[in-house]
Amino acid sequence: MSSCVFERSEYEERIKKTKDAMAAENIDVMISTLPQNMFYLSGYDCGSFYVHQGVIISLDKAEPIWFGRGMDANGARITTWLSHENIREYADDYVQSLYKHPMDFVGDIIKEHHWETKTIGLEMDQYYLTAKAYLSLKNSLPKATFKDANLLVNWIRLIKSDNEIAYMKQAGKIVEKAMAVAMESIKPGVRQCDVAAQVLHAQMAGTESFGGNYTSVFPVMASGIGTTAAHMSWSDVPYNKDEVSYLEIAGCRKRYHAPLCRTIYTGTPPPHLADKAAFVIDGLNKTLEYIKPGVTCESVEAIWRSAISKSNIVKKQRMAYAIGIGYPPDWGEQTASMRPGDKTMLEPNMAFHMIPAIWQKYEDKNDIGFVISESFVVTEYGCDTLADFPRKLFVSQ
Amino acid sequence: MSSCVFERSEYEERIKKTKDAMAAENIDVMISTLPQNMFYLSGYDCGSFYVHQGVIISLDKAEPIWFGRGMDANGARITTWLSHENIREYADDYVQSLYKHPMDFVGDIIKEHHWETKTIGLEMDQYYLTAKAYLSLKNSLPKATFKDANLLVNWIRLIKSDNEIAYMKQAGKIVEKAMAVAMESIKPGVRQCDVAAQVLHAQMAGTESFGGNYTSVFPVMASGIGTTAAHMSWSDVPYNKDEVSYLEIAGCRKRYHAPLCRTIYTGTPPPHLADKAAFVIDGLNKTLEYIKPGVTCESVEAIWRSAISKSNIVKKQRMAYAIGIGYPPDWGEQTASMRPGDKTMLEPNMAFHMIPAIWQKYEDKNDIGFVISESFVVTEYGCDTLADFPRKLFVSQ
Repeated sequence: MSSCVFERSEYEERIKKTKDAMAAENIDVMISTLPQNMFYLSGYDCGSFYVHQGVIISLDKAEPIWFGRGMDANGARITTWLSHENIREYADDYVQSLYKHPMDFVGDIIKEHHWETKTIGLEMDQYYLTAKAYLSLKNSLPKATFKDANLLVNWIRLIKSDNEIAYMKQAGKIVEKAMAVAMESIKPGVRQCDVAAQVLHAQMAGTESFGGNYTSVFPVMASGIGTTAAHMSWSDVPYNKDEVSYLEIAGCRKRYHAPLCRTIYTGTPPPHLADKAAFVIDGLNKTLEYIKPGVTCESVEAIWRSAISKSNIVKKQRMAYAIGIGYPPDWGEQTASMRPGDKTMLEPNMAFHMIPAIWQKYEDKNDIGFVISESFVVTEYGCDTLADFPRKLFVSQ
Repeated sequence: MSSCVFERSEYEERIKKTKDAMAAENIDVMISTLPQNMFYLSGYDCGSFYVHQGVIISLDKAEPIWFGRGMDANGARITTWLSHENIREYADDYVQSLYKHPMDFVGDIIKEHHWETKTIGLEMDQYYLTAKAYLSLKNSLPKATFKDANLLVNWIRLIKSDNEIAYMKQAGKIVEKAMAVAMESIKPGVRQCDVAAQVLHAQMAGTESFGGNYTSVFPVMASGIGTTAAHMSWSDVPYNKDEVSYLEIAGCRKRYHAPLCRTIYTGTPPPHLADKAAFVIDGLNKTLEYIKPGVTCESVEAIWRSAISKSNIVKKQRMAYAIGIGYPPDWGEQTASMRPGDKTMLEPNMAFHMIPAIWQKYEDKNDIGFVISESFVVTEYGCDTLADFPRKLFVSQ
């Protein structure tokens, strides 16, 4: 009945790696509540993450235990590779109740397995492990030792299997199509929401061979002064003449994401924007050329910083971050970032979104942004971008 | 420069109500991290909720303080009504750092205002207040008293202004269009992802008079055995002949949501499904007829339970919940629910999603779901549904 994305052996490999990492950290039982990690470990793929749920992995038990709301248990039976006895559902009166908490139910599962005096790992800084969830669990298990295992599973996800990379490349094909639609349809007088509609259509329709899945972040679409900001969305006003706009969108295939950003100007770009674009694109090209196994994330960022050093561009934020599986509200993996101090060494089958976005301060009308990006996978000798899309400032008249 | 959705006076009214509720709970300072509440109180509307951010309201300060990541401060300047001095940004090295936490930065703001010995309210069981965020704040402010104010602002949102209801009605018009597209395009041989593409297109294109915004939940679309589960999404396989499918989608206008569910059968519906549909629709109709100010949520649910008592339908979950502003991952307000024990009394301008969904267990091929819903606003004498869409089991041949 299960409709898992991968073969059982791939999940078993992931569980083994997780248990090895747990053992190295002296963690006996791991409760993973991040939807990305639930999907990675169990296959679970339903949009139910607005209620408390997770998977429990114990060193002394072969399979994980899924826990969640009763109405989602069939979703777990359909999408995971787990035995039905390891799908544990709580009653609906636990949901948003003043009197009991789903983590009381999880505490009971822990006790049933005699794990209540063990060291339990939690993803302490992830959405979906709330302050109350933590306190409820602690209250329910007074003899347990809790340990922060925030990114333990995320770091295992950093190096992808070839099967995972194949989905990321399909996601790259999807985002090519969606970005092409955007660049063709942004024109003065066209409503922003109508461009958004076409972009979302392209993201889901995918190609003739494979369709798209929902992205973990809705399209970021900004125009004019909005391009000074990082996470604006569209309105229903029409695009203006002589205005800059950018999009940050992704293709998603079986939850694997390939993000891409491009900027477009409706008219003849002002020289200060064209100059900025030329510097950033040159920096992006040089940085991508440098990528190969064995170099560190911070050394990649240094190449970028050196490339733009002759411009007046200031880029305060990290310029790339690891990507892979995505669920709302984010497609970032929260592992390696290309920024000073990050000494992660690149290896084949790591994947990143390199986004040297320039949002600028906003003080006068020249303060407009320029945003371009590439997603790529590290290969044996260099890197492959996931999408093949012109690297330029687009112009629409 | 601000592009707020409402007049300043409406925000000031909301702040006043929040301060009154805080005073009643002996809370001096409230830190609200739920994006819905940030939008409600400050107007902030950017997709940046994957990093730590929030608004701080103190009884002794007129305006809230927004805090967030540096790259989002311009988004706050553009979308909120706040003075720029009350927009406080943290540096990028706080983001997903092992060494410092954005809540250290928030602690510094609290100390700067001499609030470090006060009683501070937190939304303890909301995504976006993680266990680590709580512990970091507690560590930063050892003399403060923390109090759970989980739904303090949510309950203020329960009764909408006429301006808010106007946006919800527009959202209802949008979801009518999106659901019509779905019911027309689901046919044997059509790929599920191509229907999803059309639904999303309709959700964003909206009407000629107003466009749609992104919904806080992606379309739930399930077919066959997937209709036994609550939160599945589409694949790229084609719809089959003689198969049941349902959608749960919303229209969104300026962050206000109007959800709607309908079920469709590709062929002649089997009698057990047609019977189930007739019972549920009759129950839904009777329950909606009962709605008026002064009745309690649990009494509404009792009407529904009585209406289906002669069928073999089992409905374990709450059958309606309050709606309004939505951000990922949810459009539920987390306040009133129509379920036993909820004594909230209905008042005009409350809004609910009534979803008497029957997902069923899954044991044999007859175990397929039937899902229909209406979103409505309570009026002076009864209720108005937000969408006007046929209440029936749809059929496609």
